[in-house]
Amino acid sequence: MEKKICVPGFLANGIASGIKADARKDLSLIYSRTPARVAGVFTTNRFKAAPVILDMERIKSGSAQAIVVNSGNANASTGDAGYEDACAMSRAASRELEIDEDLILVASTGVIGERLPVEKIIANMSHLVGGLHESGLPSAEEGIMTTDRFPKIELRTITLEGEEITLCGIAKGAGMIEPNMATMLSFIMTDASIDQECLESVFREAIARSFNAISVDGCMSTNDTAIIMANGFAKNASLHEKSEGLSLFREALFDVTMSLAKLIVRDGEGATKLIEIVVEGAESESDAKEVAYAVARSNLVKTAFFGEDPNWGRIISAVGSTGIALSPDSVELYLDGIPLFSGGRGVEDNVKKLADVMKRDSVGVLIRLGMGNKSFRMHASDLSHEYVDINSLYTS
Amino acid sequence: MEKKICVPGFLANGIASGIKADARKDLSLIYSRTPARVAGVFTTNRFKAAPVILDMERIKSGSAQAIVVNSGNANASTGDAGYEDACAMSRAASRELEIDEDLILVASTGVIGERLPVEKIIANMSHLVGGLHESGLPSAEEGIMTTDRFPKIELRTITLEGEEITLCGIAKGAGMIEPNMATMLSFIMTDASIDQECLESVFREAIARSFNAISVDGCMSTNDTAIIMANGFAKNASLHEKSEGLSLFREALFDVTMSLAKLIVRDGEGATKLIEIVVEGAESESDAKEVAYAVARSNLVKTAFFGEDPNWGRIISAVGSTGIALSPDSVELYLDGIPLFSGGRGVEDNVKKLADVMKRDSVGVLIRLGMGNKSFRMHASDLSHEYVDINSLYTS
Repeated sequence: MEKKICVPGFLANGIASGIKADARKDLSLIYSRTPARVAGVFTTNRFKAAPVILDMERIKSGSAQAIVVNSGNANASTGDAGYEDACAMSRAASRELEIDEDLILVASTGVIGERLPVEKIIANMSHLVGGLHESGLPSAEEGIMTTDRFPKIELRTITLEGEEITLCGIAKGAGMIEPNMATMLSFIMTDASIDQECLESVFREAIARSFNAISVDGCMSTNDTAIIMANGFAKNASLHEKSEGLSLFREALFDVTMSLAKLIVRDGEGATKLIEIVVEGAESESDAKEVAYAVARSNLVKTAFFGEDPNWGRIISAVGSTGIALSPDSVELYLDGIPLFSGGRGVEDNVKKLADVMKRDSVGVLIRLGMGNKSFRMHASDLSHEYVDINSLYTS
Repeated sequence: MEKKICVPGFLANGIASGIKADARKDLSLIYSRTPARVAGVFTTNRFKAAPVILDMERIKSGSAQAIVVNSGNANASTGDAGYEDACAMSRAASRELEIDEDLILVASTGVIGERLPVEKIIANMSHLVGGLHESGLPSAEEGIMTTDRFPKIELRTITLEGEEITLCGIAKGAGMIEPNMATMLSFIMTDASIDQECLESVFREAIARSFNAISVDGCMSTNDTAIIMANGFAKNASLHEKSEGLSLFREALFDVTMSLAKLIVRDGEGATKLIEIVVEGAESESDAKEVAYAVARSNLVKTAFFGEDPNWGRIISAVGSTGIALSPDSVELYLDGIPLFSGGRGVEDNVKKLADVMKRDSVGVLIRLGMGNKSFRMHASDLSHEYVDINSLYTS
């Protein structure tokens, strides 16, 4: 029997409110029976969408009980009126849920620069709240999807002091992924009991190594939001920085966020391949990251993967295009373990083997810089016709 | 009658030597009857191709008489053997032309990481030299093209002290254009008499404002090369930093390089539009440049232009994604003069007008940051299906 997707103390729902032109779900609600500890990571884009601005204020309290999310409209570049719309959206939820407005977070995803049709959200709020149920997370996931081709839900359970603890994350991609979680929404629910400071630090770390280490198209959105709510229903002794059980929780949380991140790359708009890029032997982690992103962002590299073209020279060219100090003779390149470049030149006779590697669904790119001992690992997608299709027709 | 494309004292030719699999021209030679003053700007990629390494050494003398160029193979990532091949290529030209080897520059463009079939170049050298003629520049241009859809030749004449002075530039694109002239070759021939130092400074400036201010796909190649040869056949008093005529020469040179740069963007692999991006009101030129490139490189912006989708929010999102200090409320966005964003929000009712603008062949994007008085201007292309086609099938 498949494990039921629910987290003790959480209810959820997703409905169609008419924001999307078709009949797909576009309005979701996640609700905790009691106020939960909360932490969030938001876009670093200078043009933050109204819901992001609102959440960043409210989340400072460390406490939240509900998240209302719409898809189909980003409520971004909408000025003061947009901020009022975000407030109106939370006010409607506050009224129906009969909880304080400050305990409500909001998120929006979709087209930028158009006013949010908030009247549709208000009109549908009692219907949304009325349908809240314990197994509602898959339905809430449906309501946050935009161009996603499949839902993204990850569930893990761990045992701490004999208590079962559940973590469940939902996410939406799909384009504009990178850096800093562009057009990405993710909500993680757990019944763990955990100290505020500790929750913030483990969440920040999990996001840095997962959602902030993926690249679909090099674009960063105005709406990126990742929120974790921990409602303490599991009754474990509250986790803190020195708890023995913290490493288990940290690992499970990273597993959830990393699995969601990989699903997002897999579902990168039009993506046909999952490319893991590891840079080793860098002088600093930031050097390693710069090289990894230069490769991940290169449209020539991405189209070569899409075309399954064993054109490893494009990877080397991308590596060399960054400003970091490099000695070309000490750089090594491997694809799925096959050495392709070392000592300043291609490794002869290996291009034929590479042709087979390029046909694989997932390919690992290892770049050794030979400059130090720092490294960075990330995931990227290829660039296909479908990406161009999806993104040339988005608003129209 | 069309102006004959030739520069006094220069001969050129282009032939098919069998490096390209089909019967297209792939080997070119440009030759000055006497040693010319020379200046060059080369890729900053850390993995410089063998011909780039060789040219950077030789060009220090300030003197050159011939440039041999092949297309179809980049002679990059080929190690010491590749350097030997570049030398062998120049040696063959030296023998046939009966001039010192140090006066010969070389360039290669094409696939990375495969040994140059230098025996084909050597075998065809006497044929190449035998066909040198005064009207050979268009033929030489043909021989340097790879995925270019059309030849790129620009000719200008100016009059200095009663002497007619000619400048002619040829170039090849097409992908990997940006930054620093990626997979770009350009050769400028002039019969002007000009001091070495002066030639270097005006050429460097012209390149910075033209070839280094365009973006096709954000990739930088290992082979970028721009070379100017000035043979002094015009018999003007040698131009120096304080010559009255220098501004005229500088302007004509910039006109040639800028026109070639625009042709390269127009011919950006699969490009359907020429996008001019101007960033004003920046605190520094580097801030302005960072914002311009963030917009130019955004695949979401590029696909919106391809799809003629009036999705101006993607431009704002790209502007906000850079690390520079910005006050969202003071940023303004115009497309072909139509205000679309100011005061932190979209300008209502202008999206309909934008739909017409997006259908145009060339579109001007103006971004005012409101932070200072520095600016940057560049040109970019859109991202189309054809780009994906061309680049997913390049080596195969």
